[in-house]
Amino acid sequence: MSFNIVLIEPEIPNNTGNIGRLALGTGSTLHLVKPFGFEINDKRLKRAGLDYWQHLNVIIYENQQEFFEHNKDKKMIFFSASATKYHWEIDYYDDMFLIFGKESVGLPKPLLQQHTEDTVKIPLYSDHIRSLNLANAVAISIYEGLRQLGH
Amino acid sequence: MSFNIVLIEPEIPNNTGNIGRLALGTGSTLHLVKPFGFEINDKRLKRAGLDYWQHLNVIIYENQQEFFEHNKDKKMIFFSASATKYHWEIDYYDDMFLIFGKESVGLPKPLLQQHTEDTVKIPLYSDHIRSLNLANAVAISIYEGLRQLGH
Repeated sequence: MSFNIVLIEPEIPNNTGNIGRLALGTGSTLHLVKPFGFEINDKRLKRAGLDYWQHLNVIIYENQQEFFEHNKDKKMIFFSASATKYHWEIDYYDDMFLIFGKESVGLPKPLLQQHTEDTVKIPLYSDHIRSLNLANAVAISIYEGLRQLGH
Repeated sequence: MSFNIVLIEPEIPNNTGNIGRLALGTGSTLHLVKPFGFEINDKRLKRAGLDYWQHLNVIIYENQQEFFEHNKDKKMIFFSASATKYHWEIDYYDDMFLIFGKESVGLPKPLLQQHTEDTVKIPLYSDHIRSLNLANAVAISIYEGLRQLGH
């Protein structure tokens, strides 16, 4: 049993690095959709101490269209601060795709409008912050999914 | 209902920043036990974009002894990769203290030996990484606690 973590147009390399560690640690596949706010190459990965990256299942897509065409029959859940349902109110399934937008603005509005029923948020209890760090949001949701699947 | 997040001798400023954001977002109090691997001052917080820090409940202790004397009657749970119980197998309580060690080596062994019954780990499903990023570990556990308390 495993999940798919999808980052659409990630901007901050440190977050993608931490999410790679999460993906490996949870047996998840990491899907990265371009454009990125950074370059991924062997030299940079080495310098960032991401020596675990070679063990990771990672799939890179040139754009959103390519990602959605390639995975069109998959069960997907979208994360957005604008959602009304909480991430712990839904059922997680084996092979589910957990989809996250870029750090600055989240997922594109048209995409969210097409998937309102499958959009969730992580509860926040302060008006002083708009969102959690992206890697933290992925961590919270993937472990809720693993807990539900009885890992 | 709220929790206490305790970082004993944190080393990496970016982690403590993200954990501050988590503490604020979850209504938790952040307890920081010196020595730190960085300095906390207004100039640095501003430069790191941590403008939310002013809204945070944060308590700083000079050393571990001061922390444990000050909080000796509190219900505490300790996080360590060497634990046998998983973080989702325990019951969380209002005002519980969730205690995390430094990034490089975790909590001190003597401390863990005193609290084996109250030590938990976050499950990992790969031999290629030893642990998760500290902020991710805090995120996973605090949201499991909030979920249990029916937030």
